[in-house]
Amino acid sequence: MALLKCDFFSELLMISTSMTVILPENTNNQIGLKNNKYDGKIPVLYLLHGLSDDHTAWTRRTSIERYAAEYGIAIVMPQVDHSFYTDMAFGKQYWTFLSEELPNVVRSFFPISDAKEDNFVAGLSMGGYGAFRWALRKPEQFTAAASLSGVMDLASHAKQKQADQNPIANVMYLAFGNRDLAGTDHDLFALLRKEEELPALYQACGTEDFLWEENEKFAQFTNEYNIPVTTSFSAGAHEWGFWDEKIQEVLAWLPLKSK
Amino acid sequence: MALLKCDFFSELLMISTSMTVILPENTNNQIGLKNNKYDGKIPVLYLLHGLSDDHTAWTRRTSIERYAAEYGIAIVMPQVDHSFYTDMAFGKQYWTFLSEELPNVVRSFFPISDAKEDNFVAGLSMGGYGAFRWALRKPEQFTAAASLSGVMDLASHAKQKQADQNPIANVMYLAFGNRDLAGTDHDLFALLRKEEELPALYQACGTEDFLWEENEKFAQFTNEYNIPVTTSFSAGAHEWGFWDEKIQEVLAWLPLKSK
Amino acid sequence: MALLKCDFFSELLMISTSMTVILPENTNNQIGLKNNKYDGKIPVLYLLHGLSDDHTAWTRRTSIERYAAEYGIAIVMPQVDHSFYTDMAFGKQYWTFLSEELPNVVRSFFPISDAKEDNFVAGLSMGGYGAFRWALRKPEQFTAAASLSGVMDLASHAKQKQADQNPIANVMYLAFGNRDLAGTDHDLFALLRKEEELPALYQACGTEDFLWEENEKFAQFTNEYNIPVTTSFSAGAHEWGFWDEKIQEVLAWLPLKSK
Amino acid sequence: MALLKCDFFSELLMISTSMTVILPENTNNQIGLKNNKYDGKIPVLYLLHGLSDDHTAWTRRTSIERYAAEYGIAIVMPQVDHSFYTDMAFGKQYWTFLSEELPNVVRSFFPISDAKEDNFVAGLSMGGYGAFRWALRKPEQFTAAASLSGVMDLASHAKQKQADQNPIANVMYLAFGNRDLAGTDHDLFALLRKEEELPALYQACGTEDFLWEENEKFAQFTNEYNIPVTTSFSAGAHEWGFWDEKIQEVLAWLPLKSK
Repeated sequence: MALLKCDFFSELLMISTSMTVILPENTNNQIGLKNNKYDGKIPVLYLLHGLSDDHTAWTRRTSIERYAAEYGIAIVMPQVDHSFYTDMAFGKQYWTFLSEELPNVVRSFFPISDAKEDNFVAGLSMGGYGAFRWALRKPEQFTAAASLSGVMDLASHAKQKQADQNPIANVMYLAFGNRDLAGTDHDLFALLRKEEELPALYQACGTEDFLWEENEKFAQFTNEYNIPVTTSFSAGAHEWGFWDEKIQEVLAWLPLKSK
Repeated sequence: MALLKCDFFSELLMISTSMTVILPENTNNQIGLKNNKYDGKIPVLYLLHGLSDDHTAWTRRTSIERYAAEYGIAIVMPQVDHSFYTDMAFGKQYWTFLSEELPNVVRSFFPISDAKEDNFVAGLSMGGYGAFRWALRKPEQFTAAASLSGVMDLASHAKQKQADQNPIANVMYLAFGNRDLAGTDHDLFALLRKEEELPALYQACGTEDFLWEENEKFAQFTNEYNIPVTTSFSAGAHEWGFWDEKIQEVLAWLPLKSK
Repeated sequence: MALLKCDFFSELLMISTSMTVILPENTNNQIGLKNNKYDGKIPVLYLLHGLSDDHTAWTRRTSIERYAAEYGIAIVMPQVDHSFYTDMAFGKQYWTFLSEELPNVVRSFFPISDAKEDNFVAGLSMGGYGAFRWALRKPEQFTAAASLSGVMDLASHAKQKQADQNPIANVMYLAFGNRDLAGTDHDLFALLRKEEELPALYQACGTEDFLWEENEKFAQFTNEYNIPVTTSFSAGAHEWGFWDEKIQEVLAWLPLKSK
Repeated sequence: MALLKCDFFSELLMISTSMTVILPENTNNQIGLKNNKYDGKIPVLYLLHGLSDDHTAWTRRTSIERYAAEYGIAIVMPQVDHSFYTDMAFGKQYWTFLSEELPNVVRSFFPISDAKEDNFVAGLSMGGYGAFRWALRKPEQFTAAASLSGVMDLASHAKQKQADQNPIANVMYLAFGNRDLAGTDHDLFALLRKEEELPALYQACGTEDFLWEENEKFAQFTNEYNIPVTTSFSAGAHEWGFWDEKIQEVLAWLPLKSK
């Protein structure tokens, strides 16, 4: 695998930014590493960070490059500040950046497939929310999406935070303002009800996670509405050891053509 | 010289961020490079980026590492988004990050001197404003400060922008809100009048720069009030060729003990 | 934790080189990460790569930064090409670089402790050999050393390879020439017999590893001579999944003062 | 422009290595930077380092990214240790890496043109030699090649060094052994006589450079044999200020289709 630290300019955000990219390599001689071959355009997993992270988080906290090597898949890790992957009420248009500019930039730099069957998205915590929202709002772009310890019930979450006076409350205010998010396209439950052809969904959460309740609620909801979701609930908290384990499950679960 | 890309966590900003750092090395064998020695704690120049840049700008657009090698000085290049180096009205506390957390982090990682005589700050455009504001608000921290094509008259600038409906206007609104900045500690003119013991100041601007008028106004003001400023005005626009040239002048001008 | 990619010049090697460095940070707000505090000079683990790797290997194939965060320890990862951490018969003086220049450079850049009780070394495969050789030849520098799937019986290994005509044989020829290494200071068994005050030693190997036999031989030898070694032998091959697991054991085993 | 630090595995060299790559971006909003557009496959300049450098040298010592931005060209900067871009007598096969593996890797990662008219090579000192040797041995691959302060008369150079007992003599011994290189394919003069359809050539050297005499000799030779070479000789020494200036000339001189 190749690891690329890519500093580029976002025309939309009007600022230099960075992404970390992993590309498969067709090699045999790397000691201690299984390496899968690929042919033609490369399938890609967009992998989204959490609230206190930037584009470096996944490579620093997990062995994502090693795990990806087995599957011949590219991994693209962008950064979106504290935005919740939204066009911020007070800040930058990270949703438009993520869903429009970023894929274009990525495809202009690297031989990444733009076929729906080769495109996947996953993320943790705030990025789990971002991954599901992206896949549910643009189901024509993705074959599968995974949320690890995701913020699933953003509307309730935001409502509760809007009453608080702490730093996280301010983060949510900058992202969403004071709107009620229930039923809007920020609300994963609303998006689920609206879409007809959904990508394959995977949802992991630890039972000691402070987001466990809203993950349980999400699972009940999808169950009730007969929306197929692969769930992986097990003992674990909101921490990187859990995500290091679950991202391996996600890669094994992805419906890659090469499998 | 050593070039360090440093990914670290800002406790204050509650997010991972990065800085680029250049450290002097006592070497002789680098072909084609003059290298000055240093003894003991290393003097440091904080070097601030402009509006559309991040921490990588100075190393990518100029030969700053090569220029610094001659002087045995460290260069610290942080990043502050579109904040104008202020505690944003709608956003993060980049002023507190810059003036308090950053120097502490830098000194905890590297053997950088905290003596006033070894500390300098410079920047371009938005960063020229940031450099002067930092030096004028914390004159006890710096011996010298330089502004290259700086936003010198922020108050007028902001007032004009507040009437506009363009992306830059929004950037300024997020940083400052709708306040009148004249006379506040965001106003370099007000800060100049207030301080008694100023660091040595250096001001460069190109006569074709769109900020030329406010730089001229600043020069007239300091002249009128007998505030000593080294000026370097010459043909040139708001572009990196100019800054690549002027940063060499700044390094030659800095009152380094080792000179 | 902070992650630093450090490009520097090696006066001895007469070439630019790089190291990856992890420094502890005293933070609380990183989501999903346990972070231990430190006081004063930072303890350090030099962590050595294997034959087909460079300075990036440990951070890319394991979660070393996350594991180190729990202990408030710095990790220094240099690179030495295919040298086996020796002054090469045909090539560069990587042993002198490693054991003399590197620690000086590291201490000139970062507030790393030079006290024996704060210095540790570990490595995998070729780097396991390098770690033990460094610790056995310079026992006054290290309190503990760990070998993961190390090349323990280099003399036999080299002798066998010298008869071959393959790429690895050439690598060993460039490093050692055609000398018989048995009994020399390249021979860990000879070094073990010679030293009196040894650092604490830790030896891990998988029972499916192609180096398992020489690791078993090493363990028998230390047993016979009553040299205390902590061993961790378990099912596993010569691959990064094993090293990702064992490096966590090593960090838990290190006799850090702060524990 | 985008700046990419690319860590990849060289199957041929059997080790992880790195390259720095600059890719054009079609943007308008970067303050202070002229940016040229490109269409379709990107033209590329392979840019080679000198003896004491690695892949980071050109970006750290010059403003190459800024200069390239004007031309919509990609820059690829590999690293080859002290090899003189040759298959070393005692060391790695860097010539084969450079001329075969590297272009394949680059084209598999990035949308770089493989058309002769879009491929260029340049370098400084040891890399000036490498650039001319590559272009003269593979004239079907390149439309133009530039040498800045190049080692032009390697055969004489090597003969003289072979009599010495200094570190550079050892470097040359490892690269070439003790052979007489005159008339071989390591000898640029021999290569010039042999080829019929040469790429456009550009040769720069400072008149205070310790390689000035052999550059003069090369110029006389090409003059005598009516081989067209664009020369740029001026006051200057063997140092990065000179190369920062001349690489701008090279970019202006390249016969890019888009010009």
